[in-house]
Amino acid sequence: MVAAVAANCVIGVDLGGTKLLVGVVDESLGVLHRIQTSSDSGDTTGLLDRLGEMVDEAIEAAPGEVLGVGFGVAGILDTKAGMIAASPHLPLAGVPFEALMGERLGVPIAVDNDGNTSMLAEWLHGAAKGASDAVMLTVGTGIGGGIVANGAQVRGSSGGGAEFGHMVVEQDGEQCSCGGHGHYEWYASGDAIGRAGERLAATSPGSALAEAAAEGREVTGALVTELAHDGDEASIKAIVQVGKRLGQGMVSIANIFNPQLIVVGGGAIAAGDLLLDPAREIVAREALASLGENVSIVPAEFGADAGVIGAATLAFEQLGQG
Amino acid sequence: MVAAVAANCVIGVDLGGTKLLVGVVDESLGVLHRIQTSSDSGDTTGLLDRLGEMVDEAIEAAPGEVLGVGFGVAGILDTKAGMIAASPHLPLAGVPFEALMGERLGVPIAVDNDGNTSMLAEWLHGAAKGASDAVMLTVGTGIGGGIVANGAQVRGSSGGGAEFGHMVVEQDGEQCSCGGHGHYEWYASGDAIGRAGERLAATSPGSALAEAAAEGREVTGALVTELAHDGDEASIKAIVQVGKRLGQGMVSIANIFNPQLIVVGGGAIAAGDLLLDPAREIVAREALASLGENVSIVPAEFGADAGVIGAATLAFEQLGQG
Repeated sequence: MVAAVAANCVIGVDLGGTKLLVGVVDESLGVLHRIQTSSDSGDTTGLLDRLGEMVDEAIEAAPGEVLGVGFGVAGILDTKAGMIAASPHLPLAGVPFEALMGERLGVPIAVDNDGNTSMLAEWLHGAAKGASDAVMLTVGTGIGGGIVANGAQVRGSSGGGAEFGHMVVEQDGEQCSCGGHGHYEWYASGDAIGRAGERLAATSPGSALAEAAAEGREVTGALVTELAHDGDEASIKAIVQVGKRLGQGMVSIANIFNPQLIVVGGGAIAAGDLLLDPAREIVAREALASLGENVSIVPAEFGADAGVIGAATLAFEQLGQG
Repeated sequence: MVAAVAANCVIGVDLGGTKLLVGVVDESLGVLHRIQTSSDSGDTTGLLDRLGEMVDEAIEAAPGEVLGVGFGVAGILDTKAGMIAASPHLPLAGVPFEALMGERLGVPIAVDNDGNTSMLAEWLHGAAKGASDAVMLTVGTGIGGGIVANGAQVRGSSGGGAEFGHMVVEQDGEQCSCGGHGHYEWYASGDAIGRAGERLAATSPGSALAEAAAEGREVTGALVTELAHDGDEASIKAIVQVGKRLGQGMVSIANIFNPQLIVVGGGAIAAGDLLLDPAREIVAREALASLGENVSIVPAEFGADAGVIGAATLAFEQLGQG
């Protein structure tokens, strides 16, 4: 296929804890070309090398001019120090990522946290379009997030905010991967659906969930979701339990941000209203009256390509025409 | 005393759950004249009548031109509906307060939640001066709050946000006065200091706290704080317990807002570093590394007059020169 007109493109890089996904994205946010690999590349240099190669390959494959490269990184940025301050699943803590990557690639680049890039894409082009106040939750292995308030994105004083997964929802709760205790992502993430599934498999003999566990299948959030969609009661119950926990954190979000929208993306949104309806019920019952009434809880519009599209949106916004 | 030059003044009204405080405030935020009464005025009409009389009296007493009247209200505003949506301690729920009061007074008025007005005063003139990102907690009977992000105050889509007292910090926790469960103000307010004091009085025979309780004195946050400053170990322990709970909520605030400052005001700040040091310790240990390092936890600069000064600052900002 030959493009009739060479379109302006950017490269969007979804730099997640388990996979690297690089895409060529055009101005209508179509993903023209994808390159995917594991993000387990050993040390920092290995990861940066692999990223550099993937982006070079994507630039080659682009049908038109490439304005630049956007990165959505699973890590906490410190824009004051010019580095990634923490990244539990990637060897990037303390790395001046933007400077190193910009030098290596020789094209304009833009870097942000992946929750922030997802929020940006949903706000400019997706489920939160036109909102003055919105919160994004990316519910997967953990919970990432993004904030729009007063019609602008909020990243905090050093660019590291919107870490909703690390809200304290249980004062003497379980230890989180970050070292803190009682954090939202322990109770309400995709992984939490897997853990709820394990508990329910043990107490629900005869369920599809119990059978799957007995066959030695790993009880993940994805498996529980699949079985729930097939009608397995134990699996549905696991998702409802986690949906309620998700809703309790949303009560805080409604009471603090008074947003028009809470947009839910990430892998766990595959559970759809099975997950969101219990959350909506909790918010309707538990949030301060006018705040609970004013908020809609909706799924993200961008699905499997959300990471690449978010990173591409960042690049279009910061480096070229949006 | 005769003022040499008639200064521009505003009237600041602190409309709290237990008292009404009206002050004449000059441009340097000096409070020239105070009128105080209980806010227990029966029904809505009784309260509005009393407020009207107090404000009229204050306008009479002002030495110069009165630019207008600012109100800081202990209630949740719904600016979209043009009313106070909820006010647990005042008969103002569903009342179009700004319209009614403006008509009655015949002078320009400005109305906001009292946590927001406290934040505004601290941000423009106090402990958070010059901050791009800050959160205010007013810790008293409950916990109110205010937010500055990206160098602007954040009130949410209908003006009702920043209700930090109603963050869920305990998923299956105690019922809050608002009807929700497990909210921050149950565990970390001035009232929580009183409750911790009651528990410790019962288990600390011989302590000043136990003696006070045995004498039939009500164990309030103020009493516990007084005894703690006198060196009573049981009282100190009560404040430290609540300080840790206060810190756990601040972990969420640091991780979500990545602020330069968390400013703590309200009656409970009388406990000073006895309350704040345990909170600081928790934030240093439990917040995400770069976010915990970047935040300072400081007492508010405006003390007993904070409510009036906050309301006056709102009036200067919205109605005249700030």
